[in-house]
Amino acid sequence: MTTTTYRQLIDAFRESKLVESIGSIASWDQHTYMPPKGAGHRAEQMGFLAKLGHEKLTSPRLGEWLTALETSPIDDETEAVNVREIRRVYDRAVKMPSKLVEEIAKTVSQAQNYWAEARKKNDFPAFAPWLDKIVALKREEASAVGFKESPYDALLDEYEPGATAAEITRVFADLRADLVKLVAEIAASGKKPSVDILNREYPVERQHIFGQSAAAAIGFDFQAGRLDTTVHPFCSGIGPGDCRLTTRYHPREFNQGLFGILHEAGHGIYEQGLDHAHYGTPAGSFASLGIHESQSRLWENQVGRSMPFWEHFFPRLQQTYAGTLDDVTLESFVFAVNNVEKSLIRVEADEATYNMHIILRFELEQALMTGDLKPADVPGAWNDKFKQMLDLTPPSDAQGCLQDIHWSMGGIGYFPTYTLGNLYAAQFMEQARRDLGNLDEDFRRGQFGRLKGWLNEKIHSPGQRHRAGELCKRVTGAPLTHQALIGYLRKKYTPLYGLA
Amino acid sequence: MTTTTYRQLIDAFRESKLVESIGSIASWDQHTYMPPKGAGHRAEQMGFLAKLGHEKLTSPRLGEWLTALETSPIDDETEAVNVREIRRVYDRAVKMPSKLVEEIAKTVSQAQNYWAEARKKNDFPAFAPWLDKIVALKREEASAVGFKESPYDALLDEYEPGATAAEITRVFADLRADLVKLVAEIAASGKKPSVDILNREYPVERQHIFGQSAAAAIGFDFQAGRLDTTVHPFCSGIGPGDCRLTTRYHPREFNQGLFGILHEAGHGIYEQGLDHAHYGTPAGSFASLGIHESQSRLWENQVGRSMPFWEHFFPRLQQTYAGTLDDVTLESFVFAVNNVEKSLIRVEADEATYNMHIILRFELEQALMTGDLKPADVPGAWNDKFKQMLDLTPPSDAQGCLQDIHWSMGGIGYFPTYTLGNLYAAQFMEQARRDLGNLDEDFRRGQFGRLKGWLNEKIHSPGQRHRAGELCKRVTGAPLTHQALIGYLRKKYTPLYGLA
Repeated sequence: MTTTTYRQLIDAFRESKLVESIGSIASWDQHTYMPPKGAGHRAEQMGFLAKLGHEKLTSPRLGEWLTALETSPIDDETEAVNVREIRRVYDRAVKMPSKLVEEIAKTVSQAQNYWAEARKKNDFPAFAPWLDKIVALKREEASAVGFKESPYDALLDEYEPGATAAEITRVFADLRADLVKLVAEIAASGKKPSVDILNREYPVERQHIFGQSAAAAIGFDFQAGRLDTTVHPFCSGIGPGDCRLTTRYHPREFNQGLFGILHEAGHGIYEQGLDHAHYGTPAGSFASLGIHESQSRLWENQVGRSMPFWEHFFPRLQQTYAGTLDDVTLESFVFAVNNVEKSLIRVEADEATYNMHIILRFELEQALMTGDLKPADVPGAWNDKFKQMLDLTPPSDAQGCLQDIHWSMGGIGYFPTYTLGNLYAAQFMEQARRDLGNLDEDFRRGQFGRLKGWLNEKIHSPGQRHRAGELCKRVTGAPLTHQALIGYLRKKYTPLYGLA
Repeated sequence: MTTTTYRQLIDAFRESKLVESIGSIASWDQHTYMPPKGAGHRAEQMGFLAKLGHEKLTSPRLGEWLTALETSPIDDETEAVNVREIRRVYDRAVKMPSKLVEEIAKTVSQAQNYWAEARKKNDFPAFAPWLDKIVALKREEASAVGFKESPYDALLDEYEPGATAAEITRVFADLRADLVKLVAEIAASGKKPSVDILNREYPVERQHIFGQSAAAAIGFDFQAGRLDTTVHPFCSGIGPGDCRLTTRYHPREFNQGLFGILHEAGHGIYEQGLDHAHYGTPAGSFASLGIHESQSRLWENQVGRSMPFWEHFFPRLQQTYAGTLDDVTLESFVFAVNNVEKSLIRVEADEATYNMHIILRFELEQALMTGDLKPADVPGAWNDKFKQMLDLTPPSDAQGCLQDIHWSMGGIGYFPTYTLGNLYAAQFMEQARRDLGNLDEDFRRGQFGRLKGWLNEKIHSPGQRHRAGELCKRVTGAPLTHQALIGYLRKKYTPLYGLA
């Protein structure tokens, strides 16, 4: 039953999303083609759109319509989902005092510049007062929004609706225990791939062409999207039929370009697979950042770093870079792109140790939110934990606690969604293999359509009809655990490193 | 005296311009980088922005503030101008029903894609229903806005405030009479340049580099703008510090690329020369499309096709295309880029016959608006008039009535501003030469700063402080006539064609 009230609610909410999508074009343009002197005017345009979107979202009429709809029965499942999820977003938005919203916006916009300077000069003390202010503001945000157990939950909820720090802590603890063992076994194996083959000459133009064709092969629709170059890679779903990927290339680093593209294309395939008939409503929107990340990790790692994928693509890669890889075997290439090694920088970490980087940040963030850790003490805490978890000591804060932009953007609570993505990806892929049979044979033939179709049906088209945890149970028959990821990693690394 | 009421008026009007400038990014993106399947969503975004801009512009509070300001004396000249011109725009806007505004925006956003397809496939019938809808909507617009003599005046007023079809008809009639004579004398001279030298191999990448450096040389600031490739070239001033030029290249047509760039750069130099302190208000906006076009024509033709310009640039062109122009003299090159010949395509027409293309469109548009011409009959009417005025029959609609994007954008009333631009350009340039002395010597040295400075001061920075006709009188001491243009053309062509 579609009532007038429901229609009004949807139209109004959809309009706030339309404003957001206009901001996405402006933001994409800012990162790709905007001339440098346009920055000031663009800031004014973005500020105007942010304010307008917030006004549309917090209109008291939305609250009235929601209350009216909640007090009468709704038969239609999609309508019920939309009311439930618009309520969540609306409540969060109206609970935030607009002065706090404005102060956070102003603070993080300045803090990002101070962070960039501090990182460049390896000067944590210059950033410390900003981190202090951001943590204080995010604690204020948590009290404004409200929480049951931990203030961290209030922040997490923005990115991963319904998830709690306690739950994540449990899964991450299991994961950590098994990862420590696995990484130790790999180190003890004494085997190492020749990673130098990935640092040969890979001219950027060919990386672009090869990457684009790989993204198209796995199912990213270039009639409904594009791929450009930016300093920091991202995927931006502008709306139905329009999804923008970006990447960066280095002429002597193969991994960065191609795996960056497969990663962003995974996000893009999710965006392109959403239910466009419900565009601008929760039913047509992605479920959570963790689920979004599961799609990028699935294509980047589960597929893109697999032997069958390279059985198809390696001869093509050899052709693309004629003369460069003639002395390299398929086996040694696949080993090289799956090298496991403790390292300092999160975005360069391998599939196994990556999660240690996340667990470290997750623990520090919680301590910052409870007040157990003072922002000024972050470098010491970071380095202690790094030593303990990864057996390395960052030679500088620039390569340590200053490496990521997230905190300067106010993104506390965002990091765990990366490892959630790895966990969901493994559990989904395990199920896809059960449902679809011999997927490796598809990959060997360069065919990815059955897997993409399965993901479209099971993960993409439901949108926010189910929260992440529930979606996982529905699709895989089990709640999220660390076992699929550990099982997948063990299975991959056992032959490569000759593990027992 | 700046009152609170004045500040409120300016802030509100400026916000409507900010919305417009956000639409400019979306529109630029649509023409440059948007993936094809994004068209539907983009139409919705553009429709929303048009509606929002219209709402902001037609807020009753604006009317109240205007009335309050008009009933008390204003000392400040800029403030007086802003009140006068906001009144004009406000009155026009409140007369337009917002449903009509939204429908026009949605229709033209889609129609542009259909036009591009129809032109590609030489399929006028595929575009006819869209033209029909657009003409109907524009007639609705004319009745809503109101007019004294002709519905065409109501449309014209949007582009050329204060101008009327009757006035333009008079100046165009004088121009046409003298042009017919001049073009006949040129044809009778029997002399012809070797235009084939412009159809040698001009690789596109070098055209881009050479064009970009020429645009920078005449004063376009690439830190505050860019140059991209589109089907139909345009210039879009997004806002302070951000102006986008586009052009198109053909590897065997020299004129199209370079003169297209000089043309759009002329528009861009105007946008960059506006008074940014008054951005978003009439005092910081361009005077009219005719004045805008005068700036593009001035740089493209008066400067860019002159002998002194090529005395500087021709040796550089020879270097850029090493081996291609070794056998060509400066004189024969300048003659070739000034070839006068009746031809099919407006944007490829020479400076003299170009105006015939405009007069033809001006007449057809008036007939469409009165209903004397049905959109479905446009191809026949076009071809008849073309035969009569230019003694040629277009071999296809793609090279006839489908060649221009304007009607698909709803731009009826726009074309005459092109010839107004030619007329103003000639009259301004005559004055610049009187004021600045030997400009040709500057050009020979590749120096364009004195001319650009004069234009910045006389034409650009005043914004809408004077309407076009008044600006012409203030700058040149005389109202607009056809004489400067005819004088300039005669002076140029007399030596080239050995006229009496």
